[in-house]
Amino acid sequence: MNNDFKDIMQNRKSIRHYDSSVKISGDELLEIINESISAPSACNLQSWHFVIVDTPEGKKKLHDFLMPFNYPQVDTAPATIMVFGNTKSYLKYRDLWNGMVEEKKVTPEARDAAVNTFLPLYEKADRQMLVADAMVDASLVAMQLMLVAREHGYETNPMAGYDASKAAAEFGLDPEQYIPVMAISIGKPDPSEVVPDTVRYDVKDVTEFA
Amino acid sequence: MNNDFKDIMQNRKSIRHYDSSVKISGDELLEIINESISAPSACNLQSWHFVIVDTPEGKKKLHDFLMPFNYPQVDTAPATIMVFGNTKSYLKYRDLWNGMVEEKKVTPEARDAAVNTFLPLYEKADRQMLVADAMVDASLVAMQLMLVAREHGYETNPMAGYDASKAAAEFGLDPEQYIPVMAISIGKPDPSEVVPDTVRYDVKDVTEFA
Repeated sequence: MNNDFKDIMQNRKSIRHYDSSVKISGDELLEIINESISAPSACNLQSWHFVIVDTPEGKKKLHDFLMPFNYPQVDTAPATIMVFGNTKSYLKYRDLWNGMVEEKKVTPEARDAAVNTFLPLYEKADRQMLVADAMVDASLVAMQLMLVAREHGYETNPMAGYDASKAAAEFGLDPEQYIPVMAISIGKPDPSEVVPDTVRYDVKDVTEFA
Repeated sequence: MNNDFKDIMQNRKSIRHYDSSVKISGDELLEIINESISAPSACNLQSWHFVIVDTPEGKKKLHDFLMPFNYPQVDTAPATIMVFGNTKSYLKYRDLWNGMVEEKKVTPEARDAAVNTFLPLYEKADRQMLVADAMVDASLVAMQLMLVAREHGYETNPMAGYDASKAAAEFGLDPEQYIPVMAISIGKPDPSEVVPDTVRYDVKDVTEFA
């Protein structure tokens, strides 16, 4: 396990060709997701949902909505993790707080204050707000997931821009509730893979003081 | 500097009261952002933009659009970093690739292939796609920013859900181009701050295999 923060963050690169002979167990993939969900989320609603695609049948489905440009990643990687935003996470909000009361992490009064303040905001929210919240939450956890993958010795490739309307339904999820935010291939790089350096705009070009 | 990945990621908590006597220099804030922008982005468009709010005048502006619930964070933190998504980042796409050619990171042919493939997609994109891309990019970099802050010994609090229409204009930015994704307060915690543990749903409740 790599625990070097600077290395994990600064040397992450997007890998297009993986070593197909190196598999990742379902348990390890769950562990990687479990570490990633320490990410913060709006009102702690955790509006994310994951589909681990690691079977031949599952990988075939990825071709139905990803761009051909992405086929090398998903065909060679031992797994691709679909990260969805969950636009109806607020339906579990009361349960979440009841659980915290049971675990004595909050008082019943704190639960009631939070539920009475925030739940109505979500119950009254329009679709645009629910989608925005879900996209941000899912992106935050996706970023952690790419870093945790490197902790575990793997590399990733984040993919977006595919036919979003198909992705949820392909995996039996309600497309109204689950919006695809990112597909992340994960595995060991093919040893012959040469990954080009990318550049970033100067920090001063994208930052102002106020 | 803390370089312990596990500690940085797993012990991050949202801080509501900061030690106002501990300032952070503009240079260090720029350095924190500079480390964070190693985040990936759609087509490397880096659709993010930052406003570092660390003056009394700037902090006053935050009250105009943040929720009163967020005032303790922004009033006590030495700085709040506004993370915006930039919906017009593609206008710089040609310059980005020209720069990579100049630095001999890619060939002119690779530049032409990328620009001719991806730039038209953005030029033809509707606002919904441009906003979605900008929100995801800005969220990815925001997550890294919260982690890099901990590397530097600071804590953060991510805030959303405020009056998005006002945030850009308050800081002289075009609200059509720049969409507010997150405000992140940063500083040393007030020593008397007691941060409650939050809980997460079991990983198996939010993950499926396919």
